Parts: sequence; C-alpha cells; structure tokens
Amino acid sequence: MFRTAELGRKVGNRTYREKKNRLRQELLELQRLLREQSAFPVVVVFAGVDGGGKGATVNTLNDWMDPRWLMTRAYGSPSGEERERPEYWRFWRDLPPKGRVGLFLDSWYSSSLLDRVHNRINDAEFDRKLERVTAFEDALADDGALILKFWMHLGKKAQKRRLEQLQKDPLLSWRVNEMDWQHWRMHHDFVAAAERAITHTSHRSPWSIIEGTDPNYRNLAVATTIRNTMTAHLDRLDRHRNDGLPHSDMDGAQMVPETVGLNGADELPKKSIFSILDMSLKVKKSEYKKQLEKLQGRLHLLHRKALARGISTILLFEGQDAAGKGGAIRRVTRAMEARNYQVIPVAEPTDEERAHHYLWRFWRHLSRAGKVTIFDRSWYGRVLVERVEGLTSEQAWTRAYAEINDFEEQLVEHGIVLVKYWLQIGKDEQLARFRERQNTPYKRWKLTDEDWRNREKWDAYEQAVNDMVERTGTSRVPWELIEGNDKRYARLKVLRVACERLEHALGD
Amino acid sequence: MFRTAELGRKVGNRTYREKKNRLRQELLELQRLLREQSAFPVVVVFAGVDGGGKGATVNTLNDWMDPRWLMTRAYGSPSGEERERPEYWRFWRDLPPKGRVGLFLDSWYSSSLLDRVHNRINDAEFDRKLERVTAFEDALADDGALILKFWMHLGKKAQKRRLEQLQKDPLLSWRVNEMDWQHWRMHHDFVAAAERAITHTSHRSPWSIIEGTDPNYRNLAVATTIRNTMTAHLDRLDRHRNDGLPHSDMDGAQMVPETVGLNGADELPKKSIFSILDMSLKVKKSEYKKQLEKLQGRLHLLHRKALARGISTILLFEGQDAAGKGGAIRRVTRAMEARNYQVIPVAEPTDEERAHHYLWRFWRHLSRAGKVTIFDRSWYGRVLVERVEGLTSEQAWTRAYAEINDFEEQLVEHGIVLVKYWLQIGKDEQLARFRERQNTPYKRWKLTDEDWRNREKWDAYEQAVNDMVERTGTSRVPWELIEGNDKRYARLKVLRVACERLEHALGD
Repeated sequence: MFRTAELGRKVGNRTYREKKNRLRQELLELQRLLREQSAFPVVVVFAGVDGGGKGATVNTLNDWMDPRWLMTRAYGSPSGEERERPEYWRFWRDLPPKGRVGLFLDSWYSSSLLDRVHNRINDAEFDRKLERVTAFEDALADDGALILKFWMHLGKKAQKRRLEQLQKDPLLSWRVNEMDWQHWRMHHDFVAAAERAITHTSHRSPWSIIEGTDPNYRNLAVATTIRNTMTAHLDRLDRHRNDGLPHSDMDGAQMVPETVGLNGADELPKKSIFSILDMSLKVKKSEYKKQLEKLQGRLHLLHRKALARGISTILLFEGQDAAGKGGAIRRVTRAMEARNYQVIPVAEPTDEERAHHYLWRFWRHLSRAGKVTIFDRSWYGRVLVERVEGLTSEQAWTRAYAEINDFEEQLVEHGIVLVKYWLQIGKDEQLARFRERQNTPYKRWKLTDEDWRNREKWDAYEQAVNDMVERTGTSRVPWELIEGNDKRYARLKVLRVACERLEHALGD
Repeated sequence: MFRTAELGRKVGNRTYREKKNRLRQELLELQRLLREQSAFPVVVVFAGVDGGGKGATVNTLNDWMDPRWLMTRAYGSPSGEERERPEYWRFWRDLPPKGRVGLFLDSWYSSSLLDRVHNRINDAEFDRKLERVTAFEDALADDGALILKFWMHLGKKAQKRRLEQLQKDPLLSWRVNEMDWQHWRMHHDFVAAAERAITHTSHRSPWSIIEGTDPNYRNLAVATTIRNTMTAHLDRLDRHRNDGLPHSDMDGAQMVPETVGLNGADELPKKSIFSILDMSLKVKKSEYKKQLEKLQGRLHLLHRKALARGISTILLFEGQDAAGKGGAIRRVTRAMEARNYQVIPVAEPTDEERAHHYLWRFWRHLSRAGKVTIFDRSWYGRVLVERVEGLTSEQAWTRAYAEINDFEEQLVEHGIVLVKYWLQIGKDEQLARFRERQNTPYKRWKLTDEDWRNREKWDAYEQAVNDMVERTGTSRVPWELIEGNDKRYARLKVLRVACERLEHALGD
C-alpha cells in the first residue's frame, strides 16, 4: 500500500514556485465559489507517520488559502470538558458549515490507531472503532459534504533521516522527543495498523496516499488533489441543479478523490511503482536450469505438505500482454501433480457469469482444502482492463478496490495462501516480443489486434497498475512485483516467492 | 423495535382468499417482467424467532410464484465441502442471477446471531460479523440487486402458544424439540441480539418487521411488501433507462422497502403501536397531588445523586400538538435545581444550524457530566414532521433511522441515561384541547394554523410514529409511550419512568 509512496518523488524549486502561484489563485477562487453558493462543507483529514509533513502541509494550506473561510483543528488528549461527552462530541462541534473548508489534524483516526499500535485494543475492537469512523463520515457525505483524506507517508529510512535532520537543527530539535523515536521503532506495527485502517475506511471516502519526503512535492500533491476534487464536486452540484434536482438530493453518491495523475496535466513527477524495479536483472541459462530444478523440487514438496495440512493456495497472475504469464505458470504447474491444481484462465465472462456480481465467478472457483488454484488474470480485471477501456463506470471500479480487499480478507482469514504476481516488462521488450510472435508461425495466434490497441494505452495501464498496487497491496496480502524483461529471471523469482510464501504459511 | 409486531394483527379467511388471488397474479406478472428484462437479481432474506413462520411463508411464496424462476435456499451447519472454503462461499454460490428471485432461510445472519445469544462471541466480535454482512449486502446492492429482508416476530407468549400448539398436533409435533424450548427460554437474549443485528444492518438495506402470529396476515404482509418493492425497483430502472443512463449505473442508491402502509390501499389490518395503549387511564385530583409530591421528591434526590456521580441524563419529549409536553416538562423541572438542567426547545433550525448536518445542533447541546438536558421535540423531527410534510427527501429520512441509532448508541455507550417519551392523545381529545385554547385568551397564542394543518395529517403522523418506534425503539433505548388523554396520569407516568430509569442507572 505504501510502496507507491516510497518512490522518491521530488519537485525542483523553480517548478514549485511556478505551479504554486497558479494553484493558490485557483484555490482562492474555489473557496469563493464554495462560499458564495454555500454549496457544501469540505472536510480534509490529515493522518500518517510522524515527520510525514502533516503539520507543515496544513500550515502551507493556511498560508495559501483564505484563512477567513478555513478552519484548522488538531486534537490531543481530550480535555475534561471533552471527556464528559461522547468521544465524537469534539469532532461534531468543530465541523465546518456549508461553504467552508475544515482541516483536521490527528482527528478521529488518531486514538484508535495508537490504541491498536500499542496493543491496547485487539483487531475486533479496532474494526469496531473503524466502523464508527465510517458511519460518521458516511453520515456527512450523505448530507453532501466533500470528504478528503490524506495519508502522509514516509518509509522507515526516510523517517529516520527526517528525525535526525530535525534533531540537528537547533531551532527545530524541540520537535523531536523520545516518543517520536519510539514510534519510529514501531514503524512496522504502525504500517500494519494503518493499512487496516485505510482498507476499512475507503469504501465511501477513499484515502489519497502522499509521499511525504519532499516538501515541494507534498504540498503540490495535496493542494492539486484538493483543487481537482473540489472542482469536480462543484461541477457535480451544478449539473445536479441544472437537472432541476434539489440540493438536498445530491447525496448518496460515492466521492472519488481526483488524485494527481501520473500523466495528467499537472506535470507533477511522473513516477509509478515500476520505477523501483531493476529491469536489467538477468539469469544465465546454465544457472537457470540448475535453479529451476531446485526450486521446482522445493515447491513440489511444499505443495504436498500443504495438501496434507489442508492449506489451500491461490496464485494469481497479472501482467502486461506478452509479459510471460503463461510461461511462468507452466514452470509452476510442472512442479505439482495435476489432480492437485487447476488453472483458471480469466477471459470474457460467460452469459451466466455476466448475470451475477463480477466477484461471483471467482468465488465459485475457490477450491477444496489443500488444493492450488492458479488464476491467469483475475478479479483485478475490474480495475485494470475494465477501467482503462471504460467497460465499467468510474463509480464501479473505484468501489471495486474495497470490494476486492473485503474478498481477499476473507480468503486470508480462512487460511488460504494468496500470492499476487504482477509481471512487468518494459515497453521496448513488449515490442520485441510482439514482433517475435508475428514472425514465428506457431506463435502468431497469440498476438491479436487487441494487443496492439492495449499497447497504445500503455500510460493509462501504468496508472491503473500503480493505483491497484497502492490500494490493494498490504503487508498481509502484498503484490509481488516481478521484473520480467528476462524470462528466466522472472520464472525463478515466481517460483522462489511461491516457495517462500508457502514455507511461511507452513511455519517451516 | 418488536412492540409494533405484537399488536395482534389478523386477516379473516374471506379477505385472505380475495387478496391472495390478486397478489399471486401480480407476483407472477412481476416475475415475468423481471425475467424478460433480466433486470436485476432479487434477494429475499427471512430471519426471526422459531415459530415466527419463516418456513411456512417461504413455502407459500413457492406455491404462489413461478417456481422456475425462484430459488429457495436454507442453511444448516456447513458441510465438509463448505467448511473447506470461507464462510460466505456457500452464499455467493447460491446467489440468484439477474432476472430471478432467491429466497434465503437462516442465511448469513443465522450463525452470528446464535453465537451471540449463546455467548460464544462478544459484542465487538458480533459487530465485526455484522460489518461483514453489511459489506456483502452493499456489494450486491451496488451491483443493482434488490435486497429484501423480513424479520418474522413472535412475542414470548405467542411463541409459547405456537410451540404448544405444534406439540399437541400429532402430525406436527416432530417439529418441536428441546432446542426450541431452550430458545424460547432465551427469548429475551434473542431479542437483544436481534435488535443489535437489525440496527447494525439497516443502513442500506433496511429490515421489514413482520408480526408472525396470524398466517394470513403474515403471508399477505410479506407478499405485498415484495410486490410493492419490486414494482418500485422496476419503475426506477425504467426511469433510469429513459434518462439514457446505462444499466450498470443504477447502483449506489439506497433501497427503501415499500412496506405495507397502515393506511395504504392494501387494506391490511390498520393497527399501529397506539392500539396497545389504554387511553382511558385516569388519576383523581387528590391522588395526583399526593403522588406528584412523592415522585418529585424522589426525582430530586436521584438527580442530585446522578450529578454527584457524573451521570448525565437526556429526557426527550415527542408527541402530537397539544399532547401536554410542556406541562409534563414543567413537572419534571420543578423537581430539579435550575443550574443542573437545561431545556432545549427544538423549533426551526437557525441559519447556522441549517448550514450543518441535521444532527449537529443536537451534538452541540450535549451537557457536561451529571447535568440533565430536556429536549422539547428533538432529532426525531427528521422522521416525523420533516417526513410527513415532505421537508426532506425520502432517502434522507429513511437513512435517518440508522443515523439516529448510531447517535444514540454513542450517548448510551458513554453512560448517558437517555429517556425517550412519546406523549399520545386521542384525536377527539386533541380537538377538545384546540377548542379550549381557542376560547381561553391566555392560551390562544399556543394554537396556530399549523396545528390545524398537522391535524389533517393525523394518519400520516400515526404511520410515521409507528415506524419511528419500530426502527429506533430497542430494549436498550426504548420508547416510553405515555397515555396522555388524562394530563394527570401522563405527568405522573413521565415522572415515574424518569425515576425508574435513573434508579436503574444508579444501581439503586
């Protein structure tokens, strides 16, 4: 979930100044529109790791926007007054009215998150608190409020650098205390709790995850998202009024944050999760043969052990056209006995499947205990091809991230080992493989016109994959990114990951 | 919540036969339309107490409808096959496709309910399971499915009669076993768990609570609700298509079950919660004076004790115009010291209040620890006057039941004693009081044209009050129904209830 926020995005000072001035003007104008129309309240929530720049970003926004119509609230331990009322009293009290923007620091997420990280509550109690958060936000959204949530992220190393940097500066060192270092040491627990909080509260009002390392990038990313989403929400209200519908009816619809596109007109750093992959990784043929045999033997023993123990496995393959899914799958299945696995190629849904919820056809393929199910493409089609090709509405694919997380949570809770592979190849490598297919008679059937059309949408797919990894990859159910330019390297890595995940599940 | 389903509604055999034939034809016609348009799947869930007639109703529907396009599923303990997959596998597998109706007995509610009643799980774990139920149903509804949920209720006495009746019949006695009697003895726990389940799963797809005593009434009520809701959903789809919107976009909207109206064209027994009130109850003047003094003294001591212990109280008064709220409130406040209570008269919202969520103005009035807050009218305006007068959209007031339950749950969890009074007067008594106000100079200001207008909508208000009691009255936060034709009787009962609830909270 957070790997997409550890890519080292940066914005140079000169670009920053230019973009900043335009953004400020636009934000002021939007504030004016919002106020004049008394359109709706805007609730902006900031959360994330210490040092991720929550406070600094809020200060910047206060500087850029019109402070008369902006409220900022931060919450520490509840006061006596506050303790005498239900927990949410202080949040309700501080909500902005229609026409205004409220910025909330360490808000209704803070206490439950810390309680979970410090093990004062268990998962069930945590979920219950998150359910209350959802009910609160849903009630506001149903009433027409625009809710924006920013998760400011820093990787563990970046957080350390940030804390050390603050400590060294005599003017800022007061901001770092032992508690901060304690939290830094618990970075892993914090990330796990954060992932749970984000997946459980993204059904209606999804989070935007912001890389917090570079202040320039951070400020622009947050401000741009606010600008885009406010504009879209005001437009929606306009259309709604033009249709003659009363304002009070403009509720119930899901809010999609208009995030900063990788390739949008915003010209923010165009980095996707792929930028962290070393696409030059290679394995020699001789080494490959040796390793392949070894890994297949290891997997063979593991899959038999899992079968005996009744532990099912799902291996799910996604990747660009010609990324080598088929070849990788064959190397995996050769390590197993045919009666113990099934490969499900996911293509166009059948008529029967089309008459059901899109997840139905995946539920029906869940195997009996101990078996291995291999999905060649999967339920992620909803947020990849269906999104990019416009085969499904934006509402539907946005909602799908939460539905998929719910689905996978049930698989994992049941003890199923779920391994999700993304096979990545470079654009040039894809072209080379397409040409090879074209020129090799027995491979020609593999290449269709659709493959060429998909290729034209390379950038849109890159955006979709990046969003998918961000919203559905967690430490519990990670995306395994496979550098696929070298088929041998990719196949070995696929096998190795399968072995490691099975070993972990079997407690080996 | 269930008192509205213990009113002894009955339908005579002759009426039953007549209505049944029309309903059957209509249901068959609707099935045909649904099938031809492959419009959406219809999921009908039956739950409730043993003997409430879940099974019998499902049999009747199978008899009435076209069995080729109807599926019935019931779930016992999971089989070996089922145990090897996640819990919801068997439910997903059995979902009806678009164009068909599925009837589900003892479905995804059953195991969690029983686990809670038998104390195998605690409230937090129960809530978590209910959250999964909600996510499941929401995913289906988002996809366009129509979800209908019927809770078949029997009071404890009626359930006993039903079990005894079955036992006496040699042909049916096999249907009653020791487990049924054990469940009967746990009727109270079952009701508490049921109330929690119903309030937590009614945000999107609300339940219809059906009185299960009389088979004729039960069958007609369920079938009529199905007919009305299917008709409305098909209409909605039509309008949607006429607007040129794709079918896939017809999701996201909240489904409101078109329940059997008290005064609808359905001519089902017109009984509301008021039918259980004995409106002839009276107290003599001499007795009143004695009792009043005694109760006020008792309340005085209790409110001081609550203050010392920091236990806050909210007394909320709703009732028809001229039902005597003001007089009752004055009898309460006279028992307390002015600095310890505040009375909040709830009238038109101010501009500031209008710029916020409708619950905001009630949150702000929550008092410090130990104080008493008296609301003269309340947040229930949303589902009473705003509903009846059409001041808010149907979506908004339907949603409000769940929002109000969430709100009150937070009050009660915080330890606040919440007493909700409904003061009821008869239609004739109201007229007499209006006339008296008209003829008494110093009372004339109390009577407005609006009062006369409201009076014309007596029946619509009765329906709204009945729904309110059904959907927001639970054993934890009950509605205290006050027979108000005799002011003396009403005032004493208001005081007595306040004392009892405070004593209970103080552990006296």
